[in-house]
Amino acid sequence: MPIETLKWVGGTTGRLELIDQRRLPGRLEKLSCQTPVQLFEAIRTLAVRGAPAIGVSAAYGVCLAVGVLADTAPAAEAMETVGKTCDYLASSRPTAVNLSWALQRMHGTAKTLLSKDPSLTIGALKRVLLDEADAMCAQDRRACEAIGQNGAHLIPDGGAVLTHCNAGALATAGIGTALAPMYVAYRQGRRFCVYADETRPLLQGARLTAWELTQAGIETVLICDSMAATLMQQGRIGAVITGADRIAANGDSANKVGTLGLSILARHYGIPFYIAAPLSTFDLSIADGRGIPIEERSGDEICSLNGLLAAPETVGVYNPAFDITPAGHITAIITERGLIYSPGRENIASAMGGV
Amino acid sequence: MPIETLKWVGGTTGRLELIDQRRLPGRLEKLSCQTPVQLFEAIRTLAVRGAPAIGVSAAYGVCLAVGVLADTAPAAEAMETVGKTCDYLASSRPTAVNLSWALQRMHGTAKTLLSKDPSLTIGALKRVLLDEADAMCAQDRRACEAIGQNGAHLIPDGGAVLTHCNAGALATAGIGTALAPMYVAYRQGRRFCVYADETRPLLQGARLTAWELTQAGIETVLICDSMAATLMQQGRIGAVITGADRIAANGDSANKVGTLGLSILARHYGIPFYIAAPLSTFDLSIADGRGIPIEERSGDEICSLNGLLAAPETVGVYNPAFDITPAGHITAIITERGLIYSPGRENIASAMGGV
Repeated sequence: MPIETLKWVGGTTGRLELIDQRRLPGRLEKLSCQTPVQLFEAIRTLAVRGAPAIGVSAAYGVCLAVGVLADTAPAAEAMETVGKTCDYLASSRPTAVNLSWALQRMHGTAKTLLSKDPSLTIGALKRVLLDEADAMCAQDRRACEAIGQNGAHLIPDGGAVLTHCNAGALATAGIGTALAPMYVAYRQGRRFCVYADETRPLLQGARLTAWELTQAGIETVLICDSMAATLMQQGRIGAVITGADRIAANGDSANKVGTLGLSILARHYGIPFYIAAPLSTFDLSIADGRGIPIEERSGDEICSLNGLLAAPETVGVYNPAFDITPAGHITAIITERGLIYSPGRENIASAMGGV
Repeated sequence: MPIETLKWVGGTTGRLELIDQRRLPGRLEKLSCQTPVQLFEAIRTLAVRGAPAIGVSAAYGVCLAVGVLADTAPAAEAMETVGKTCDYLASSRPTAVNLSWALQRMHGTAKTLLSKDPSLTIGALKRVLLDEADAMCAQDRRACEAIGQNGAHLIPDGGAVLTHCNAGALATAGIGTALAPMYVAYRQGRRFCVYADETRPLLQGARLTAWELTQAGIETVLICDSMAATLMQQGRIGAVITGADRIAANGDSANKVGTLGLSILARHYGIPFYIAAPLSTFDLSIADGRGIPIEERSGDEICSLNGLLAAPETVGVYNPAFDITPAGHITAIITERGLIYSPGRENIASAMGGV
C-alpha cells in the first residue's frame, strides 16, 4: 500500500491529514490540520516537509482558510482571506519554490474565476479551490510516477545508488522524486542497494528514507553523511540521486545541505550525479543559485540530541538547511517530461516550454 | 590550565587517570584505570581516544600489568606478562599505529634491559618501564608543542580554519596535533575562527573540539559534517587541518571518517589541506593506504541517539570509523620536525631519517 503522506478528508469544510514526520520511524501518527495556523506550524516544524509535499499541503491550506467562511456571501469577500493566507503560508519556509508556486496557482485560480464571474458565491469558490488543490495533488502524483519511469534505467541492476535526505513518498503526494526511479526500477524487477545518508541535523535519511525504502522491501544501508566519500572510493556507488527544493533558470539547484558536497565527490570519482524534480521546482525568475534564499535554522537542531546537549553552550553554530549545487556538477535533471542532460539556461527553458 | 587528558598517579604500583571523554561536554569526570582490562575497555569504548593519547595510555597499561607482580622476583618472570599485555592492548583498536608503536617500544625496552642484565629484578623493571612510559608522555607533549610551532603560521589571521573530529589536547598528552597550531597561533595573538565539524557518529567535534577550543577562548563555530562544502563555496575557509591515526610510507593517511571527503572538497576549492601528526603516526611498514586496517564499529553508534532509535530496526548500517586520504590530496603533513610538503615515499623517508 502506498504511503499517504497527505490526504484531504471531507468536502469543502474538510481538513488536511498529514503523516507526522517528526515521529517517524518510531511512530506512524496522523496530524490533523484544520486551520492555516496549524498547517503553518506543521510546515515550519517539519511535520510535513519535502518541496512537492509542502506545495500541495499549502494549496489545501487555502481551502482550510476559506472553508470557515459563509457559503452564501459573495466570493469577492473571500479574496482578502485567500491573499493573506497565501502570503502567510508562503512565509513558513523560504527555500522550496513549490510552496509559492502552489500558492500563486491557488490565488490565480480564485482571481481568474472571480474576474470571469463577479456574482460567484464563496460556496462555489470553495468548490473550485478544493478541485484545484486536488488537481495539484493528482498532478504531483503523476509527476512522481513519470520521474520514476524516466529515471528507472539509471538504477544499476546489481549495483548501488546513493541518496541524501528524503525525496521519497514522504516528500511528495506520490512515490517521490529522487526515490521514484528506485521504486519503479524495483517494480521492474531490478535488484540494487540504496545507500542512504543519514542527513544531519534532522536525520531525514535515517528516519524517513530508510523507513520508506525498507517498508517497500528495497535493500537499504544507512551511512553517516561523512561516509559517502569512502563508498565512492571503494567503487560501490553507481549513481547519486537527490531531490531539489528550487532550481534556478541556469540549473543551479538548492537542496538539503550536503548535496553540494556529494556533487563534488561524485565529480571527483566520475560518478553520475542526478537531481530528480518536477517542473514545479524550477524557478525561471531566478537567474542562478546566488538568488535562491537559503533558510538558516536554529542551532539547537545540531546541539541537542534527543534532549542531550551534545556541544558546549558557549559554542557558535551555523545551520543552513540547504546548499546550492552548481549546474555544472549535475549530470542530468530527471523531470516528469524526461531528462535534462547538462542542465543550463537553454535546455531548461526548452524543457519548460509550455509550462 | 592545560587539559590533563591522562595522568599517571603514584609510583610503580600507581594507576592511570583519564578524563572520561564519553561524558564530555556535560560532565568533566576522571576515570581511574588500575588494570589492563580496565584500560582496554576505556580505549575500546572511547573513554580515551586520539592516536597519540591511546599510544601513551597503552604504555602506562604495561606499567599497570607489571605493577601487581612481586618486586623481588627475577625480571625474566615478568616478560610473559609484558608480552601478553602488549598483544592484548594492541588489539583494543586496529587503526591507530601509535598504539602498537608505543607497545613495541615498551616491550623492546624490557627485552633490551633483560638481555643486558639477566639478574634484574621485577622491581627494577617496573621502575624502568614507568620511566619509559613517562618519557613517551613527555615526548608526546613536546611533539605537540613543536607541531604547534611549526604549523602556527598556516592559521590565517582574521580568517578561519576547518577541522574534523578531535585532534586536540584531549587526543594527546599535550596540546594536540591538528589543534596545536591553533593554540600556538592564538598564544601569538592571532585571531581567527575555527569551524568544527561535529563528526558523526560519535560527535567528537561537537563534544570535544568545541569544548576544548571554547575553554581556551578560541572562537569556534560548530557545523554538521555536510556543511563544510557550503563554507568552502562561500570562501570562508583558509585551510583545513586534521589529525591522522596512521600514515603509510607513501603518505596515504588514515583519519576519522569524513577526512577523505574534506580533502576532496578542499582540492575542488583550492584550499590547502594539512594533516598534523607526530612521527609516531607514520607506519613505514605499510606501503600505501590499502594496507591500513580500518576499524568498523557497531551500527548502533549511528542508529541510537541518546536512547532514541533514529532509524528503522530493519535497515542495514555501514559504520567505518576511519577513511584513507590519498597522499596526493595533502598539501603538507605538519610534524614535530617540520612540514613535509607534497608528502610521498621519498620526502617522508627523509623526514623520518634517524627515527
